[in-house]
Amino acid sequence: MTPALDKLIAHFASLPTIGRKSATRLAYHVLDMPEEQVRKFAESLLDVKQVIRLCQICQSYSETEICRYCDDPTRDASVIMCVEDNRALEAIEALHEYHGRYHVLHGVLSPIDGIGPEQLKIKELLARLDDTVKEVIIATNPSVEGDATAMYLGKLLKPLNYKVTRLAYGLPVGGALEYADNTTLLKAIEGRTEV
Amino acid sequence: MTPALDKLIAHFASLPTIGRKSATRLAYHVLDMPEEQVRKFAESLLDVKQVIRLCQICQSYSETEICRYCDDPTRDASVIMCVEDNRALEAIEALHEYHGRYHVLHGVLSPIDGIGPEQLKIKELLARLDDTVKEVIIATNPSVEGDATAMYLGKLLKPLNYKVTRLAYGLPVGGALEYADNTTLLKAIEGRTEV
Repeated sequence: MTPALDKLIAHFASLPTIGRKSATRLAYHVLDMPEEQVRKFAESLLDVKQVIRLCQICQSYSETEICRYCDDPTRDASVIMCVEDNRALEAIEALHEYHGRYHVLHGVLSPIDGIGPEQLKIKELLARLDDTVKEVIIATNPSVEGDATAMYLGKLLKPLNYKVTRLAYGLPVGGALEYADNTTLLKAIEGRTEV
Repeated sequence: MTPALDKLIAHFASLPTIGRKSATRLAYHVLDMPEEQVRKFAESLLDVKQVIRLCQICQSYSETEICRYCDDPTRDASVIMCVEDNRALEAIEALHEYHGRYHVLHGVLSPIDGIGPEQLKIKELLARLDDTVKEVIIATNPSVEGDATAMYLGKLLKPLNYKVTRLAYGLPVGGALEYADNTTLLKAIEGRTEV
């Protein structure tokens, strides 16, 4: 293995879900790629860092000052859905069912990792809340940190007279009851709805 | 998803073993990486293409005209092990047990993919064979193409009075007999050795 190859392997291996063996395979693949294609890949890496910024309103990744969700007048400005990150935003967006606005928190509260409210885009959320906004949907992940963040936001926003909601916990559609974990099952019972 | 991000996702997804979901995750990870680190990653990609060439003797990847294996006078020049690619070379090298020379074929015969002898580094192998060389070990992968390539090289080199050998087929050490596939089991019986 040559030093240049070693270095590229280390870079690949530093990415999530890529171990040393995969990284080696990828580096060798790059070696076999046409130079033009590798150049484009390298440019593309630099591009995302240089071209992408945070939308001034919702803090989602955008190549313009105001992202296309915030810039879309047909979207309902009375509802803001708070998500942990852009991936969550895109998962919701892929449903084509939600037509409100978004707010990307860029993380969740996690004292153990030193992430408090000031590390999240909560200040920016408060700054954009006005009379147009009626409801804030907290769509953090169903995790301990996601719950804590939802709780925190609820306590923060309810006194300001906004309706604050949280995505429902329950059984995943298509799953069998017997395979659900205890916590999910318990949440499904607690959150039962009338038929 | 912004166009720049989309482009990077496509680049990642074009790599082997990386699907669209992983590629998306990786692209977002790059977005969260410090710019300096991304710049180094991009440079490293370009570097492997610009700095690495084929060793003039054994055709392995090298940053010098003659690779360190060919340049090492302590290695036995009377044995040349032919491997499919650099990964195979490194697997052998990692054993620290083989001290001969290498020759990297850069592929195997595969008529279906249009890969004939002239697409492999066989010409370069013939060019380096001289009186010093006593044995050529064919270490192609245990596949149909690997076998065909070994057979081809055997027919080519034996008339030139070189000893031509092939890595042994058999049961993988530590594996249980009952889990071996039929072909391997058959090869293990055929290749049985006296105890």
